[in-house]
Amino acid sequence: LGFNPEKTKIIVDTKCMHKLYPIALKVAKKITFSTAKAIFGFENSTNIGQIFFTAIQAAPAFLGTEEYGKQIPTLIPCGIDQDPHFRACRDVAPGLNYPKPATMYCKMFPGLSGADKMSSSDENATIYTTDTPKAVKKKVGRAFTGGKSTVEEQRAEGGNPEICAVYKYNFYMFEKDDEKLEEMARKCRNGEILCGECKMCLTEKINVFLEEHQAKREEAKEIIDSMAFDGFKW
Amino acid sequence: LGFNPEKTKIIVDTKCMHKLYPIALKVAKKITFSTAKAIFGFENSTNIGQIFFTAIQAAPAFLGTEEYGKQIPTLIPCGIDQDPHFRACRDVAPGLNYPKPATMYCKMFPGLSGADKMSSSDENATIYTTDTPKAVKKKVGRAFTGGKSTVEEQRAEGGNPEICAVYKYNFYMFEKDDEKLEEMARKCRNGEILCGECKMCLTEKINVFLEEHQAKREEAKEIIDSMAFDGFKW
Repeated sequence: LGFNPEKTKIIVDTKCMHKLYPIALKVAKKITFSTAKAIFGFENSTNIGQIFFTAIQAAPAFLGTEEYGKQIPTLIPCGIDQDPHFRACRDVAPGLNYPKPATMYCKMFPGLSGADKMSSSDENATIYTTDTPKAVKKKVGRAFTGGKSTVEEQRAEGGNPEICAVYKYNFYMFEKDDEKLEEMARKCRNGEILCGECKMCLTEKINVFLEEHQAKREEAKEIIDSMAFDGFKW
Repeated sequence: LGFNPEKTKIIVDTKCMHKLYPIALKVAKKITFSTAKAIFGFENSTNIGQIFFTAIQAAPAFLGTEEYGKQIPTLIPCGIDQDPHFRACRDVAPGLNYPKPATMYCKMFPGLSGADKMSSSDENATIYTTDTPKAVKKKVGRAFTGGKSTVEEQRAEGGNPEICAVYKYNFYMFEKDDEKLEEMARKCRNGEILCGECKMCLTEKINVFLEEHQAKREEAKEIIDSMAFDGFKW
């Protein structure tokens, strides 16, 4: 749970821009409007900040090389929606004598509503890391599942874990034991367990996780400043 | 000669970008590609840095307001070629609750070759503030004048101060006394003075100016760091 503070530097774009901007400028000079438009489908109503954004997005990939003055390879973990920026970034890297960054695409964490991507703007379908146990219980209680409309139907026909947000949460994060996960899916399909039971069980797991996370978050507040990026001084 | 260090803050875009960038972002959101294209005539081959640049150019005009948290009016002295950026800047200011900046357009200083604008990239037609007396003598000696090809012709027909770079230098900077300037033009037109004399005279004036300037420049090196922008701490 978390990162090694010794090896972690947090870069906040708006605060570290004196380091990122000179790199972003080099990148920007290598990307024409034509290229950016082809990648992102810009229109006349697009604002000039959106057009420039790829240069800013690319800059941290080259920050190590700039700071150390030698080729430092980087690995960028990001969502697949960020892929076009880093493809453009890889295209311009050789011309700037930077190593091409490697990318690692994280899966989107599903929303409680059954949507593919949890979004911080839909608060009912999203567990925030700052949520109270009560809020978690309420949100999970309302989650979209693969269950039937009545207990009788569910007992008779079983549920559908494939489309169930509660099952997905267990799958992605809260049930690490594959056999237990299989067992969970089987019991669901058989109608042996009901959605209510699954939700109670998930609520418990999330709250155990959040309790630990929130405690560590409080501890981290004391060292967070020491992790702010300040010119690779480690 | 120079600025009051107590009232002077030097902003270097690449070094102060952590202060300018958040403002530039606000500006950028208010300027569409359509607007920027209409102003600057961007093409598909334009790089995305050029497209974004108006936002960066505008940011210092709003820096005071951001730092003090109240409306601070600004006066921007610049060349007329910078006008489009600040027109766009004035357009977006009210929507961001910033006061519109006022602009003051400086005349372009002419080049020694007779061109309208002295350019640092044409070193023979440009007096650098770091030039030695010898370099100044050589450059002024080769300057474009309104003189004739022979002494005889010049004595008979006179020169043309209107097109003479040496005269323009006196006009813009080195002869503050309007009557003496008139006298100079009159004598030139009459053929009373020759280009060589004018050039020797201007060389002397420039070198007196540069001697003082270069001495003050050396002195300024000791305080330059104290004038670097660092969050309006004065």
